[in-house]
Parts: sequence; structure tokens; C-alpha cells
Amino acid sequence: MGGSKNKGVSPSRQEDFPAWFQAVVREGEVAELAHVRGCMVIRPWGYAIWELMQAELDRQIKRSGASNAYFPLFIPLEYFESEAKHVEGFAKEMAVVTHHRLEEDPDDPDKLKPGGKLTEPLVVRPTSETIIGKSFAKWINSYRDLPLMVNQWANVVRWEMRPRVLLRTTEFLWQEGHTAFATEAEARENAQQMLEVYREFAESFLAMPVLTGEKSEEERFPGAVVTLSIEAMMQDGKALQAGTSHYLGQNFAEAAEIDFLDSEGERRLVHTASWGVSTRLLGALIMSHSDDVGLRLPPSVAPQQVVIVPIPRGDEGPAVLEAAGELAREIGELSLDGVPVRVSADLRDREPPDKRWEWTRKGVPLILELGPRDLRDGVVALRRRDAEDLRPESIERSQVASSIPALLAEIQSGYHRAAAERLSSRTQLQVRDLDEFREWFDTDPGDAAAGGFLRAPWSEAPESADLLEELKVTVRCLPFDQDLPPDSRCVLTGKPAVVEAVFAKAY
Amino acid sequence: MGGSKNKGVSPSRQEDFPAWFQAVVREGEVAELAHVRGCMVIRPWGYAIWELMQAELDRQIKRSGASNAYFPLFIPLEYFESEAKHVEGFAKEMAVVTHHRLEEDPDDPDKLKPGGKLTEPLVVRPTSETIIGKSFAKWINSYRDLPLMVNQWANVVRWEMRPRVLLRTTEFLWQEGHTAFATEAEARENAQQMLEVYREFAESFLAMPVLTGEKSEEERFPGAVVTLSIEAMMQDGKALQAGTSHYLGQNFAEAAEIDFLDSEGERRLVHTASWGVSTRLLGALIMSHSDDVGLRLPPSVAPQQVVIVPIPRGDEGPAVLEAAGELAREIGELSLDGVPVRVSADLRDREPPDKRWEWTRKGVPLILELGPRDLRDGVVALRRRDAEDLRPESIERSQVASSIPALLAEIQSGYHRAAAERLSSRTQLQVRDLDEFREWFDTDPGDAAAGGFLRAPWSEAPESADLLEELKVTVRCLPFDQDLPPDSRCVLTGKPAVVEAVFAKAY
Repeated sequence: MGGSKNKGVSPSRQEDFPAWFQAVVREGEVAELAHVRGCMVIRPWGYAIWELMQAELDRQIKRSGASNAYFPLFIPLEYFESEAKHVEGFAKEMAVVTHHRLEEDPDDPDKLKPGGKLTEPLVVRPTSETIIGKSFAKWINSYRDLPLMVNQWANVVRWEMRPRVLLRTTEFLWQEGHTAFATEAEARENAQQMLEVYREFAESFLAMPVLTGEKSEEERFPGAVVTLSIEAMMQDGKALQAGTSHYLGQNFAEAAEIDFLDSEGERRLVHTASWGVSTRLLGALIMSHSDDVGLRLPPSVAPQQVVIVPIPRGDEGPAVLEAAGELAREIGELSLDGVPVRVSADLRDREPPDKRWEWTRKGVPLILELGPRDLRDGVVALRRRDAEDLRPESIERSQVASSIPALLAEIQSGYHRAAAERLSSRTQLQVRDLDEFREWFDTDPGDAAAGGFLRAPWSEAPESADLLEELKVTVRCLPFDQDLPPDSRCVLTGKPAVVEAVFAKAY
Repeated sequence: MGGSKNKGVSPSRQEDFPAWFQAVVREGEVAELAHVRGCMVIRPWGYAIWELMQAELDRQIKRSGASNAYFPLFIPLEYFESEAKHVEGFAKEMAVVTHHRLEEDPDDPDKLKPGGKLTEPLVVRPTSETIIGKSFAKWINSYRDLPLMVNQWANVVRWEMRPRVLLRTTEFLWQEGHTAFATEAEARENAQQMLEVYREFAESFLAMPVLTGEKSEEERFPGAVVTLSIEAMMQDGKALQAGTSHYLGQNFAEAAEIDFLDSEGERRLVHTASWGVSTRLLGALIMSHSDDVGLRLPPSVAPQQVVIVPIPRGDEGPAVLEAAGELAREIGELSLDGVPVRVSADLRDREPPDKRWEWTRKGVPLILELGPRDLRDGVVALRRRDAEDLRPESIERSQVASSIPALLAEIQSGYHRAAAERLSSRTQLQVRDLDEFREWFDTDPGDAAAGGFLRAPWSEAPESADLLEELKVTVRCLPFDQDLPPDSRCVLTGKPAVVEAVFAKAY
């Protein structure tokens, strides 16, 4: 970078993709695993990215007609007993609260121990279906109370034996929407509509193209009639499920006893849907766009879109600092997509190259450097985070303000284009038998450039499950844009195919 | 109300203030106690109020220089052991997680029981001091890393034996700011500055005047050097602590080992501060402004500032509905303090009087009614939620848009004025001995109109604690605007006074 020593992260993507991811997350100050087993700290820079995502998604969710609300963290254990009975594949790794007090340990007065045993243990919510269902049953009486569309931004807990920061942690943040309707058509439509919100959000806001489709029966959310998902491809060719939306039929309404009087005075069960995305999206964003130097952020989610690094040498130091501040003010008056450009001048007491590397590793789209000589020459050194060699280009001071919005838009669309090209070029469409299927997925785990998605006819035959498990491959989705040739044969079993499926290794 | 039957809440404030509060919260659809003991559901209307508060406070917090971040829900039990040793008055009512799995009960296959016992129990955060301290110790190395200012919006849990919705619940939502500085002066200044943010927020945004001052030693946050608070007066004359800010000295830095290398290369402990407000503010808001009809919301925190209720009778029904929609669009283009007016036309399939009462009980500042006759006459019926009799006034249709912002501003300042008058008229300043003191506070618990604050000289003598406990009165604060006459005597003990204090019964 400009001749100076490469201060990128280590290892590179090619050397060890999972370790590279950890390094980008750490060096970009996005998040870190906490001292508490399986939990994470989302650092200010990472949380600011999440806040930008939240704000945009929240707008879309409200536009869909849903309102935010808040439900209890704790769920009585008994609520899970009927679920465990009814739901195949009910996951049981949950944090259980059994006591409500800390007491002095009689054996050692320096120690504390749990006291005040609860007669009924409480579970820390792994999801809020059951507890929100209780409220829905109470709030819904007549068809006039429908539709009811509620969303919650909250923390949830699922005990993880092998935690990985941002991807799989015991506690994470998410939004969960829960909706109830009088008719099946409306509930199905809501599930579909929210998937479209997620797709559009991923594409436009995260610059992350996704596949949309329905989950296979095997991969369906327990209790759902239909599970829809958006699936993104990471730079190592693996899939990451970036959002799901479910039509739950009347299954859930029956379990939670959510019924209503229709306009003819008949008592009927509602139809429900639910949909959610989580802080996993931060992981998806990083594995989509970042490089061997560190984080790369699409401008839409960059807490700072432009950072100005002054180089205040010698007598002209004060003038340089002043010019940097002036430039920041000028850029702050610009806007991109109707939102003011997020800009700051980094006036901290540090060496300019250290500042430049910090913002580079943190993924800031544009860095502007300004020294005494630039000041005299009426120029600014501009560094684009999306430039291959990260070299600066000199730009007339008078041209800076007018260039910024277009440059940011260009970086945003460039990241999207690169990700779309990857998704397209690394999706195998020609494979038609098991040997080729094996070959496509039989890649060196260290080789991030090999493999990808595979789209092919599928029979849905039960025996394919064993084959897939052996190869550590999953059916990501049955894409909406089905185009199954007549008389197709299943890529796995050779039996008649009933559907086109997308297969991949996944996070 | 317009001649129709009073559909206000029951009982009235005068009949039973606490029961009135519960009724306003319930009928206004703000919140309700959950099926889960001690926890609450914040309903969409209540949560929308909280979101407006959050957005404004968040702006102020960021303006102060703090950044949001997120820290784990769970805290290892051992973190509390050193705190329990060092901190007098350490509260121990906490939810303790001891297991990480649900298992089938071998005695009854329909039942589940906790399994996977943890070797070290985890505590659900009652506050995040200790866990944030761990991160601070890691992140702060040199004076260049200071100041560090972090804020977290989160749920916290403190086991409550006698829960009351919004005021005292096992789980509640809050923000907690934690800041570290190189010097005592900066940390003290930060605590003071954030109290001022809270004061300004309470006054301008919640229309709720507050007293500001320092807490007495007895009421100080355990471990703090100084605790500052804002104290509001509810309509029953009781105090509600609406926000606190602490200077923690180096006590906390010492326990959490947060040190830094100063510019001379010396290792020194940081000085810390912390500050927070919670969903209790929703309770304070309600007990400040609501009346015997239900909720009354200052326009700044009203999720809908104007609701239009069409009365679509007969042939002119469609024209009325259309006119209502048109009016909503027109009002939606207005703004108040730079923010678009929040308006909606209520087109739901319900009776107009039911709609009117619903929005009245929910505290909407302005309701506009529009029927066929109004349409013909070119008028609209305007109902101000702050009008004593709730009667409508007729207003020219052409004048509506231009009147709305001023009307909303008038309602906001009217609520503030009424609360300020109460705070002033129900603060007793003349009492100088114990008999009068007893008399002021010896009120019928049902009489919401009796009692209030009492400001008087105080000796800080230890024996006053017993007297106060007996009377169920607390020292709310030592107000900043001290004006202690020379040779004053303590109102409780007759000893020489050292400070002016404000006494009150409190929530």
C-alpha cells in the first residue's frame, strides 16, 4: 500500500479461510468472543454496522405493517413440553434458570452459590414463538383483531458446544416477526413478502446477491408448512443462510390456541407466519466482501463512509488540521440516497500511517489524506478501499466534494458486481450424475477457490439424505425459478427428478 | 365526552392511585404483566413510545461522544464474588443459569427437566459493570485509548418478589453508559454532563420537570463516589427516580484492573463513570400526565400525534373515507420541530365512537372526526386530549393543516406547565421541625392529592435514617441549587444542618 509494509491480516483467504475470517473480525474491531463461554462482545465499530442494518430493516418491517413489541426473556419450562411432544427435531440446547438468588457458600464465605430454587425452572428464550403465541391468544378475539403483525428485536440463546464468533454463538441478536391472519392466502403472502424484503435488503443494502427458494422437507423449520430462505455464497464457495421466512399453517395456532370469531360468528384458528434475520448477517457481510487486507464495507453499512487523515508536519501542521476539518464539514453536507454522507476527520494523537491502516482494516470505503504539500498544491490523496493495490490517486481539492457521492455509489455497485459474478461463476449447472457431484464437492478444505453451489435435478428420494450427509453437503433450497427439463434424472440417485435443487456446503 | 357515556378508566386517581395506574397501562395498551412471573410484555403502542424515547436519547448519547456496543447477557458467578466482598449493600436477587439443556424426565416421558449441569453457574446480567470492565481492561492500554465511552441498550434482570408493571419488574429494558477517562475531572464532568442530558430529555421530551441533585451517602449506588439523579414528582406527590449518573472514582478500575500508560510512561488506573435510564420512564410518563380517562401523551412521544376518525354514514360514506385519507396525507406533510407529524386515518372496520375512545385512552394528542355533514359544511371536529371536558370544537377544514403544529406545541407545553406547577406547589419549603415533617408525610395512602416533596435543612446525622424508615420517607437528593441559611437546624434531629435535602415518599 503506497510502498509501505503490508499491514493486512494474516493468514490470507487462500491460506486458511476460517482463520482469515477470525482475523478480519478481530483486526476490524467488529466483535470478539467474550470471557463468557460461547458469548460474544459486539464492539462499537461492529455494532454501528449492525445499527445501520437494523435501521434499514426496521423501516422495511414497519412498512410491511408490522409493529415492534417486547416479550419476556424467560419462558416457563412447561411451554416446551407440548412443543417437544409435537415437534420432530425439537432442539434442546437451552440455558435454564433454576435459582433466583446468590448466597454465601457456607463452606467458604468468600464464595457465592445459587440459592432460592425456583419451583418451575425458566428457559432463556431460544426463540419467542411460544411466549408470543400466549399473547396472541389473549389479544385476538374477533376477525377485527386481524391481521396482527408483531416484530421483536431481541437477544436469544441457544447453547453452542463449538462457538464461532458472529456465526454460531450461544447468545446472538436478531429480529423475529410473528404474524397472524384470518386466511391461509394472507399468511402465505406475508411469508413471501418478507422474504422479498430480506432479498432486496441483502442485494441493495449489503451488496450481497442471494438465491431465493423453498427449503426441502429435511431443512424446513420444525413445525412449519413452508420455509423460505435467502442463501448467499461466501468467498470460499460455501452457502450462508442469511434470512428465513415461514408459513406455519394452523399448526402453531392449534398448539397456542389462537382462534377468532369470523364475521359469521364461527370460531376459527388463525394462520401464522414468522420471519427473522440475525447478527449472522455481519458474518455474511464480511465473508462476502472482505479481502486479505481486512474488512471491506459497502458504503450503505459503513459507519464512516469517508475518513480524512491529516498529515500535520512542521509549521503547516495547524493549517493542515484546519483544512481537514473544513473538508469534513464540506463532505458532511453531501448526501447519498438522501442520507448525509458519514464522514469524520481523524484528529487523534496517532501517527498518520497507523490511522490509515486502522481505517483500511476497518473497511472504510474512502480515505482522504492531506499533508502540507497537498495543501500547497490544492490536491488531496484519495484511497479507495476497493482498489486492487490500495494506491492513492491525487484529486483536485476543488473536485473532492462533487466526486464523493458517485465514488461511494461506484464502490457499492462494484462490491455487488463482484459478489454476483462469484455466485454465477461458482454455481455448477452441468453436473448430472453422482460421480461428477462428488468431484465438485470433493475439494481441499483449505482451497477457498474450489467448489461452490451446484444446481441440478433432484428426486427428493429418502436415500439422498445419507449421501449428502457423507459428503457434508446440504440442499440449500429449491429455487423459485424452477426450470426442470422433462424426464430429468436425480443427480444423486438417478431416479426421476421432481424438482431442481441447489446443493452446497454451508455455514 | 360529547354527551356520550364516560368510558374512562376505573378507578380514578383519587379513588386508588396505584390501581388507576394499572388500569391506564392496561387500557392504553402500553404493557402487561406476562404469564412469566415478574416479567412484562411491552405492547406495540407502549413499545412505540419507548422507541421514540430511545431514538432521542440515543442521539444525545452519541452527541456526547459515546458509541453503542453489545456485551454478553451472562456473567460468570465468580465475577460477583469479588464484588460481594468489596461492595456493601450488594444486591443478590439475580437469575442464575445452572443447566444448558432440556432432557426428558425419566420418571415421566411427557415432562422435561434441566440437564447438562454447568460447572460454573452463570448469572443473567443485573447490570453490565463487571463484564464491560473486562473488555475495558483489554481495550485500554495507553492514554491514546482514552477516553473510552460505551453505551449499551439491553435487557437486564433483577429478581422481584413484588413485581409491578413498568415500575418494578424482574426483566426490564434500559441503557447503561460506561466511560473511562485519564483524569478525575473528566470523569466527574462526564457524569455531570449525562445527568444534564437526562434532565433536558425529561423536561423537553417527556414534558416532565425534574429536580437534579446528588444522592445522600445512604442512597448512593454501591461502589460510587458520587451518585447524581433526576427526580420527578408523580400526580400522587411521590417521587420517581427517572435517571442516575455516577462518578465511580478509581474503585471500579481497581477491581476490574483497568489501567493505562500515561504520556510519561507511568501505569495509572482510569477514572470511570456510568449512567442509565430504563423503561421505568414509561411509568413516570404515565403517572405524570395521564388522567381519569386514560393515557395522555406529550406529542413528542406520541406514536400517533393526530388520528382521523371518519364517520362514513350513508351514501356519502366513500366520500368521507376519501376525505379522511386526503386530510391524513396533507397533515403528514407538516412537521413539528423538524420531524414530520405522525398522523393516520383510522379506516378499520369498527364503530367510530369505539375508535375515538380507543385513541383517547391511548393518549393521542389530537383526534379529528369527519362525517358527511362536516364534509358538506367544510369543517372538521377537533378533539384535544388536553381539554378538560374532551368536547370537540369545530374547525374550518381549510384551517386544519396550518393549525396542527401550533396545537401540538401547545399541548406539549401545557403538559409541562401542569407538571411544573404540581412540582412547585406540592414542594413544602416551610417545615422546620419533626412534628410538621411527620404531619406533611402522614397522609391517607389513598389520598393522591395530599403530601409531596419537602425541602429542608438536614444534618446527615445517622439517627435520621431510623426516623425516615419509620415514616417510609427517603432523601431523594441534595439539590444542586443549595441555599442553606446560616445556623440552620436539621428538620429531623434539630442538630446543626450541613445541607439542604429533598425528602419524599418514592416509587
